[in-house]
Amino acid sequence: MAADKKIEEGLSFQPKFDANGLITAISQDADSGQVLMVAYMNDEALKLTLETGNAVFFSRSRQKLWKKGEQSGHMQKVQQILVDCDQDCLILKVKVDQGQCHVGYQSCFYRAVKPGTTNELEFVAEKVYDPNEAYKK
Amino acid sequence: MAADKKIEEGLSFQPKFDANGLITAISQDADSGQVLMVAYMNDEALKLTLETGNAVFFSRSRQKLWKKGEQSGHMQKVQQILVDCDQDCLILKVKVDQGQCHVGYQSCFYRAVKPGTTNELEFVAEKVYDPNEAYKK
Repeated sequence: MAADKKIEEGLSFQPKFDANGLITAISQDADSGQVLMVAYMNDEALKLTLETGNAVFFSRSRQKLWKKGEQSGHMQKVQQILVDCDQDCLILKVKVDQGQCHVGYQSCFYRAVKPGTTNELEFVAEKVYDPNEAYKK
Repeated sequence: MAADKKIEEGLSFQPKFDANGLITAISQDADSGQVLMVAYMNDEALKLTLETGNAVFFSRSRQKLWKKGEQSGHMQKVQQILVDCDQDCLILKVKVDQGQCHVGYQSCFYRAVKPGTTNELEFVAEKVYDPNEAYKK
């Protein structure tokens, strides 16, 4: 099998980390199919996720491991990890409780480009919790 | 409103392109919720997507605009564009025909990490078309 074909059609999991050692990881609600958030994993975060069954990411802003839910309590129980054709992106199918986004919504994708405009947004979701309370700011 | 709060809670669409001028764009089937692919857009690709209603990406490997479906015919009709809290990732809710991945599957995410392993994959989908035919290799 050619190298590309091996990556695309083979059964060896060879996640392709980028120049910064990171791979994109999408969290998707295993039940509803809603995309909850997009984050990044380094090799260690992926290993810990596989070992523990709870989503662990690598925070680019804090430059350290980010055990999702450690502070907020909103963990993500990983049911399945999907990988795309060139193995440079993952989907985590997760079981979650309510309130996954730090702003207070269930999903980080709570706004959409307003129809008929190119630079305006509109809210498409309601807050499900008060982040000021959860994060004790 | 503080700068962060404006980005996270405001209604101005200010997509945050990375150091390479790209933003991550997830295509999700508007009907089924299935994540089809993850690609990237530069400013021009996003503008063209907004203008034409068809998904246009920027190919990192070819370093040029990639009008999805131009070669394969499998276009993506954009119904809605969602943006995440820090505005560095987009979801395109799209209407599609069958066969979105160039390998022959409906979604690029046709394999999953095999339960109980950390380095093996298993197929979780069936091919829906023959890419050798579609791309006339």
